[in-house]
Amino acid sequence: MALILGIDPGSRKTGYGLISSLNNKLGYISSGTIRIPDTLALPERLKLIFQSVTELIEKHQPQEFAIEQIFMSRSAASALKLGQARGAAIVAAVQQGLPVEEYEARKIKQAVVGTGAADKIQIQHMVRSLLKLPAAPPEDASDALAVAICHAHTQANLIRMAGSRYSRGRLAH
Amino acid sequence: MALILGIDPGSRKTGYGLISSLNNKLGYISSGTIRIPDTLALPERLKLIFQSVTELIEKHQPQEFAIEQIFMSRSAASALKLGQARGAAIVAAVQQGLPVEEYEARKIKQAVVGTGAADKIQIQHMVRSLLKLPAAPPEDASDALAVAICHAHTQANLIRMAGSRYSRGRLAH
Repeated sequence: MALILGIDPGSRKTGYGLISSLNNKLGYISSGTIRIPDTLALPERLKLIFQSVTELIEKHQPQEFAIEQIFMSRSAASALKLGQARGAAIVAAVQQGLPVEEYEARKIKQAVVGTGAADKIQIQHMVRSLLKLPAAPPEDASDALAVAICHAHTQANLIRMAGSRYSRGRLAH
Repeated sequence: MALILGIDPGSRKTGYGLISSLNNKLGYISSGTIRIPDTLALPERLKLIFQSVTELIEKHQPQEFAIEQIFMSRSAASALKLGQARGAAIVAAVQQGLPVEEYEARKIKQAVVGTGAADKIQIQHMVRSLLKLPAAPPEDASDALAVAICHAHTQANLIRMAGSRYSRGRLAH
């Protein structure tokens, strides 16, 4: 069984979601939002993200870490803020020796909802359904769980593909 | 005497500069460039910045940390990359308990050259002159030394202002 930590980074709210994955069966472990007060100076904000992600890793001991890959942003100013938050979260993971995988938003939506054009409500609905939760988690937590689910599916597909190649004796050398 | 570490963050090259400051007298300690190979994946790139800055702090034990504040960028994509690099460097400093100060490019140029519209060559020339170096350090290292010099001047001015208020018996309560 693999434990996967998904992160949806943001400069004001960073979502996290922890799931287990075993033979393509998913289990919900934990999720939530790291809220970063506007009143803190930038260094303190980044420290809060770094330390919160470090604590999550130390507490739950995931083996894998998945984060949304970002290409676009509304503006250069928001991209800079997002980049700083994202940098703090990724450094926390690599410092703990976790492999980091990045997934495009389109790929996450495809993996969770079945279409790359899904909206936030559809993601929340499918995250709730796939993880058999009594209610949909808030948006940041749902987005973080979605990237973890995308990672689990991608890994399961890689293993299935490797297995089918092997069973047919066509393993690439 | 205060040791100041200045950082000029970048996603491909991150400059660093260490100076000492005592009674407004500056001394050169060390400077250089952390080169981040294009071949590394993003998590490894950010880890390299984080660990290199952490090693500089552990080796030289500066008491203060100064970094350029950025408002503008050519594009959202470059702002995101710069933000990630900047986030990794700032997290390294706050994790070591260092106070982090940010300075606008305009203010750094003003402090080092005397005009906010100075170009890179003028900065290199003045960094060389102020620190009595035999040659101008490369651009990234010069920019990092410049932000450290700006910090030293700002701190010296704050102390001078506080002192003059105190000596005139007009210390604000």
